[in-house]
Amino acid sequence: MRALSRAAILAVGSEMLTPSRTDTNSLLITEQLNTLGIEVVLKMIVGDDRAELANGVRVALDRVDLVVCTGGLGPTDDDLTRDVVADVLGRPLREDESITSHIKARFTRRGMQMPEINRRQAMVPEGGLVIENPNGSAPGLWLEHEGRVVLLLPGPPRELRPMLTRVVESSLAARAAGMALVRRVVRITGRTESHTEEAVQSLYAPWASAPVPVAATILASLGQVELHLSVRAPSRSAAAGALDLAVQQVVERLGPDVYSTDGRALEQVIGEVLAERGLRIAVAESCTGGLITSRLTDVAGSSRYLDQSVVTYSNEAKTSLLDVPAELIAAHGAVSEPVARAMAEGMRARAGADVAVAVTGIAGPGGGSPEKPVGTVVVSAVMGSAARSRVFRFVGEREMVKFQASQAALDMVRRMLTA
Amino acid sequence: MRALSRAAILAVGSEMLTPSRTDTNSLLITEQLNTLGIEVVLKMIVGDDRAELANGVRVALDRVDLVVCTGGLGPTDDDLTRDVVADVLGRPLREDESITSHIKARFTRRGMQMPEINRRQAMVPEGGLVIENPNGSAPGLWLEHEGRVVLLLPGPPRELRPMLTRVVESSLAARAAGMALVRRVVRITGRTESHTEEAVQSLYAPWASAPVPVAATILASLGQVELHLSVRAPSRSAAAGALDLAVQQVVERLGPDVYSTDGRALEQVIGEVLAERGLRIAVAESCTGGLITSRLTDVAGSSRYLDQSVVTYSNEAKTSLLDVPAELIAAHGAVSEPVARAMAEGMRARAGADVAVAVTGIAGPGGGSPEKPVGTVVVSAVMGSAARSRVFRFVGEREMVKFQASQAALDMVRRMLTA
Repeated sequence: MRALSRAAILAVGSEMLTPSRTDTNSLLITEQLNTLGIEVVLKMIVGDDRAELANGVRVALDRVDLVVCTGGLGPTDDDLTRDVVADVLGRPLREDESITSHIKARFTRRGMQMPEINRRQAMVPEGGLVIENPNGSAPGLWLEHEGRVVLLLPGPPRELRPMLTRVVESSLAARAAGMALVRRVVRITGRTESHTEEAVQSLYAPWASAPVPVAATILASLGQVELHLSVRAPSRSAAAGALDLAVQQVVERLGPDVYSTDGRALEQVIGEVLAERGLRIAVAESCTGGLITSRLTDVAGSSRYLDQSVVTYSNEAKTSLLDVPAELIAAHGAVSEPVARAMAEGMRARAGADVAVAVTGIAGPGGGSPEKPVGTVVVSAVMGSAARSRVFRFVGEREMVKFQASQAALDMVRRMLTA
Repeated sequence: MRALSRAAILAVGSEMLTPSRTDTNSLLITEQLNTLGIEVVLKMIVGDDRAELANGVRVALDRVDLVVCTGGLGPTDDDLTRDVVADVLGRPLREDESITSHIKARFTRRGMQMPEINRRQAMVPEGGLVIENPNGSAPGLWLEHEGRVVLLLPGPPRELRPMLTRVVESSLAARAAGMALVRRVVRITGRTESHTEEAVQSLYAPWASAPVPVAATILASLGQVELHLSVRAPSRSAAAGALDLAVQQVVERLGPDVYSTDGRALEQVIGEVLAERGLRIAVAESCTGGLITSRLTDVAGSSRYLDQSVVTYSNEAKTSLLDVPAELIAAHGAVSEPVARAMAEGMRARAGADVAVAVTGIAGPGGGSPEKPVGTVVVSAVMGSAARSRVFRFVGEREMVKFQASQAALDMVRRMLTA
């Protein structure tokens, strides 16, 4: 039997060909397949259309040795994956009575009768192995075809996820080449993509020619740069060893601009430091409108270090909630370093917190001026006797400015905490 | 010349085959093509790999009459789209001196010399028409091939967007079939997917057999249900007429559970009502951690109706910032209707606002109890002499609970404003 090493993912569903939705299941599937060293070389998205779906399956079978289809396993006329795959592989469909019983039992538990239409979900192409679905009525299917594997999985993530994990750990692990493909993402703030590249590019050649070669790609995203490293090695530990070394070299070059080497988000990194040191934080937001606090509270257990924040959009609120003197705002404008600093100080005092960060700026599209154009944001942070402030000029639309400002504020806190 | 009606989108870039990124440009492209009645029937994502890219182009050409490729037009060795497409179509590449000059000028403006490597971006396959890129160095290309069109566009959205709009309005409009494909999304809260289906499904048959048929799909997403309606008609106005009627019928069936029939988000709908009526809102958040205020302030001009909000994570903060009596919290618990109501009242009074909404709950994963499990959220809203409260039980992980709670709070405000 050929070891599986190249996969295609075929997402089925007309809604993913509209302007409002696209496939995201493939991210989860890729992550899981990569752990077995199986690389995804092609993704396709087709609608609930017999001809396009059949073509998709044929194209994928022609390119790879593992085809993962998601979606189109429901009970309605729109759900064609089972039928079409059986057809392309030349396998007649037969009803599997044990699946019918399973589906009936699900309905009975909810005090309902199984609609006749659901019987379709019990149809299995000849030679297909059924994969149980603990979270829904559509079972998955595993089909072998001329040394290749075709896997049919349901579309809803909460049904897909547990089935995929089980298949990856059992049948797929047994059929993979035994090479692990391991990735690591180094996250960086405070540098542009090209400054990051400049600092690390002389590492690429030695990485590429190392006994366990490391591949690298730099990706810029809003408010940060990511360096994606990947290694294909006979074992996860060999891969991890090579990656550890590469990550260490990157950290030596980039220093504190690296905030995470294991996929953690900025808010998690900060949260861990705060929790560890028993410090409490409070946030005074203006143009970010609550986004910084929302990100901090996305982290489980954040109540240990955050108990209050305020959003002071108006000047009056800055005075009444943060004790920013009205004269200070009149003298410097609401978007200024003195006001940001006063907001941070006021927040810290009011909340009795150890650390406070404040943001004031112009998210746009209105409110800009020649001296302070849209995107001008001032961040100020205070901790003990230390204080930092910085003026930023962000580009992009309102939500992009908000996000970048939240990123800059969290990063200022991180640097202050780890200084 | 054949009118273009079926399109495939081919996204090129190895990063979109990793677990951390996927194609999203296709959403924008689909939206634009649909305005011309061109339907997207296939999406493919391939890496920076000559064989896979060539296969993708061939497969797409075989299925559709318009192939839109994005990405892989940069100056580096990884950028293969130009070369591979020229190869598949059998067109030699020639340097276009006017593009070279344009790229050189871009570098000169930034005080730099054009690296020799950028010369690749000036290579044009024989017969190709160049599409200028005002925001980057990679020009787009329009190629005709056996009655089909192949369009090469850059990957970065800020370069892609203006080029796409220009092509759609000129060359593509001239080549489309003149049938408009128009979609409308009706957004619904307060009903499950199946209850929505129950209420509207008897409309489907008459829609399907109408002179201008309307197609419908129901999609459930976090905290809301969407009904997607689409019409293909000889003109945008004919399509719009049929959609107007269908939307009206849906609104008759679903009443105030429909919050938007034109793609507006909940926070926009609320913002418009507040601005129109000159009302001001303030938000007291606990488990949502600032998310409600952040959503409200995603709307441009929200400073007209929002000037402050607070996040009171701890009991002490609820008392000090919102005047919630400590005894009330002791008697009922922080997650209770009396406390939510007191938070809303306290917020309204402190902010001098017309409307206030408060949320208190357990986002998880910790903090649940048998009586108040994780996902228990209480929302309370006050306006004039009106007050509403409701206890919700949301399922899902922390961020999902936060989002659903924010959705419920905004929806309560919407219903109060429009009651």
